[in-house]
Amino acid sequence: MSTQRIVTFTTDFGLTEHYVGVMKGVIYGINPAVVTVDITNSVQSFDVLDGAIAISQGYSYFPKDTIHMVIVDPGVGGPRKPILATVGQHIFLAPDNGVLSLVYDREERVSVRHITASHYFLQPVSPTFHGRDIFAVIAGYLSKGVEVAKFGEEISDYIRFAAPRPKATGPNAWKGLVLKVDKFGNLITNFTPKETPELFQPTAPAFKITVGKAEITKVRPSYVEGTQGEAFAIVGSSGFLEISVNRGSAAQTTGAQKGNDVSVVIGG
Amino acid sequence: MSTQRIVTFTTDFGLTEHYVGVMKGVIYGINPAVVTVDITNSVQSFDVLDGAIAISQGYSYFPKDTIHMVIVDPGVGGPRKPILATVGQHIFLAPDNGVLSLVYDREERVSVRHITASHYFLQPVSPTFHGRDIFAVIAGYLSKGVEVAKFGEEISDYIRFAAPRPKATGPNAWKGLVLKVDKFGNLITNFTPKETPELFQPTAPAFKITVGKAEITKVRPSYVEGTQGEAFAIVGSSGFLEISVNRGSAAQTTGAQKGNDVSVVIGG
Amino acid sequence: MSTQRIVTFTTDFGLTEHYVGVMKGVIYGINPAVVTVDITNSVQSFDVLDGAIAISQGYSYFPKDTIHMVIVDPGVGGPRKPILATVGQHIFLAPDNGVLSLVYDREERVSVRHITASHYFLQPVSPTFHGRDIFAVIAGYLSKGVEVAKFGEEISDYIRFAAPRPKATGPNAWKGLVLKVDKFGNLITNFTPKETPELFQPTAPAFKITVGKAEITKVRPSYVEGTQGEAFAIVGSSGFLEISVNRGSAAQTTGAQKGNDVSVVIGG
Repeated sequence: MSTQRIVTFTTDFGLTEHYVGVMKGVIYGINPAVVTVDITNSVQSFDVLDGAIAISQGYSYFPKDTIHMVIVDPGVGGPRKPILATVGQHIFLAPDNGVLSLVYDREERVSVRHITASHYFLQPVSPTFHGRDIFAVIAGYLSKGVEVAKFGEEISDYIRFAAPRPKATGPNAWKGLVLKVDKFGNLITNFTPKETPELFQPTAPAFKITVGKAEITKVRPSYVEGTQGEAFAIVGSSGFLEISVNRGSAAQTTGAQKGNDVSVVIGG
Repeated sequence: MSTQRIVTFTTDFGLTEHYVGVMKGVIYGINPAVVTVDITNSVQSFDVLDGAIAISQGYSYFPKDTIHMVIVDPGVGGPRKPILATVGQHIFLAPDNGVLSLVYDREERVSVRHITASHYFLQPVSPTFHGRDIFAVIAGYLSKGVEVAKFGEEISDYIRFAAPRPKATGPNAWKGLVLKVDKFGNLITNFTPKETPELFQPTAPAFKITVGKAEITKVRPSYVEGTQGEAFAIVGSSGFLEISVNRGSAAQTTGAQKGNDVSVVIGG
Repeated sequence: MSTQRIVTFTTDFGLTEHYVGVMKGVIYGINPAVVTVDITNSVQSFDVLDGAIAISQGYSYFPKDTIHMVIVDPGVGGPRKPILATVGQHIFLAPDNGVLSLVYDREERVSVRHITASHYFLQPVSPTFHGRDIFAVIAGYLSKGVEVAKFGEEISDYIRFAAPRPKATGPNAWKGLVLKVDKFGNLITNFTPKETPELFQPTAPAFKITVGKAEITKVRPSYVEGTQGEAFAIVGSSGFLEISVNRGSAAQTTGAQKGNDVSVVIGG
């Protein structure tokens, strides 16, 4: 009767209020057999790119048919559409503000629907909390096996922004940025093997990375090979180049923050 | 044999220690089929009203027969009673300090029992952690279908405080307060349609709200209609009047905090 | 086919990134029937002792056969071994850095295996996130009933450090320390009935505890018997002597922090 499906949460609602809890309450009320998992509810408030990064790093580790709620929704109550996206083997519920852009980038198959089936919504729909009154109920019914086509028509004009990519500034020089700083103080940059494959090889050529007040000239294969207090580059677990310090905070060591420039020069 | 029931958590235990985790461990040990959901564990330490607000805004979105643990318990180990309350279609476990007052206010049917069935308790009962040694075990057995009458007798002298309501200060003037500030910086006031129905109508008359250093003269139907940096009033998702800023923090813009006065004057 | 088993999380990964969520995703992908419970993900970054304290205070309240992931892993990617420990009636997955030391101390039966069954691992294994690529997959298969012997051979040279114990500094004098400060500001010391049984009796003799700028001369049986603003000793819910203030923060009142000295003198 009920079906065990996973619903994940990637939101900027935080954990200090009841917001995420009541969304789960609504979902369990519709499908008691559902499993809920937080990816993170600490996306920076109103920061759609921060949410886009979080979900793009997390979703693919969940089983297929997982339903991912990605609610970073500064435009709630305005004209932005609520959407249901089938991307690869996963289903996403989100406001149509680009928060799924980095997921779209990673998959071949993308189908986006405008959620219009208002007979499912909790009435009256609060103009400030669609997470509860629209997205949670849709997640509940989806998890019970209601077909995606029941919730609205496919659209092609959904919002999709380009991920911030490093730009070449010279023959062997690039400028990128710090996408985020994690709990350990690691600086996650937006450099991938696409721009600087050399830095992702077992043996890197000479290079210089400038970030904050630090100049970095070493790639380390693991944290423990960093010498004390040294900021070094490392291939992070999500495939980005990170700046780290062994048992320390690279953010503190370099003085760099989210959004700061990262310049890379390869070769002498 | 085991029954799937939801147990929710509304506590001031935080997430930095093992407190909430071990309560869940105790419950799963009694009923492996239970589902646990956090409403919030970030109630302000010792702040019974803050806990009362959190649970009153959250419980009704859960399915009937949900068991809500509301453990904000500065009097733990003292003479205050542990109680089991059946309120509307939900069950609550809490210390008898008024933390359920705002739930009682919302329901017709209230039955409160003094939990005395000490043979269920984890022995020896710690005088500092009844959440684990009393409330969690009771939640476990309740979730397995043990009848509420098994845990203690009904009482009528339970604690119930009046919610802080705005007071009239003149023919068209009221003074209320900021109940809480949420993660986004929204100021949740204690004004409801009871005091100032005009502000909850589609078209509001002229008015002035003073909070912190701000004077507010607009109600907006949604966040996105606020102009940049403007503090405005809005009907929040829990039915209270809130003060918000589009993509910003009203707490920062107005300089107001939890507990601050909110004065409302309607008409010219 | 699938088996309901509990997997707990005690990590320093925090809740601001996707790290804990994706570990759960990996586990559910292997065993959809598993139940996941956070003990805490707010262990201080890289602080193995802090993690050791958290898991030792939490694990025993979970049902037997629970799988506890204890991932405080500053040596990830280096030579430290991933281990699977059967301790008492519980199973633990952790890096071999001593983070299970305080669990080993509490149980008779300890069997530790070096996890070497790399055909289970997510490939390629990230040198910075074994929580996801090694420990989570092992937890998933363990929870499905795969026998512990399948994951690696038993070892005897695993790391085990001595818990920091108070030292006698005179005939009736000891020096210990503040193990941690909890969310309420309680100072959890490392004094137990072993060093100062007198302080754990219903009636304590005269004594003086010095911590931070405070001198404490009272043990209180419960928080509520503390007078306003008074720092007092109390037997905490994990069996340690704690320093507390009724409805207040002992950390603030005493000015003491984690790691600070606690000196105890018994008798006049």
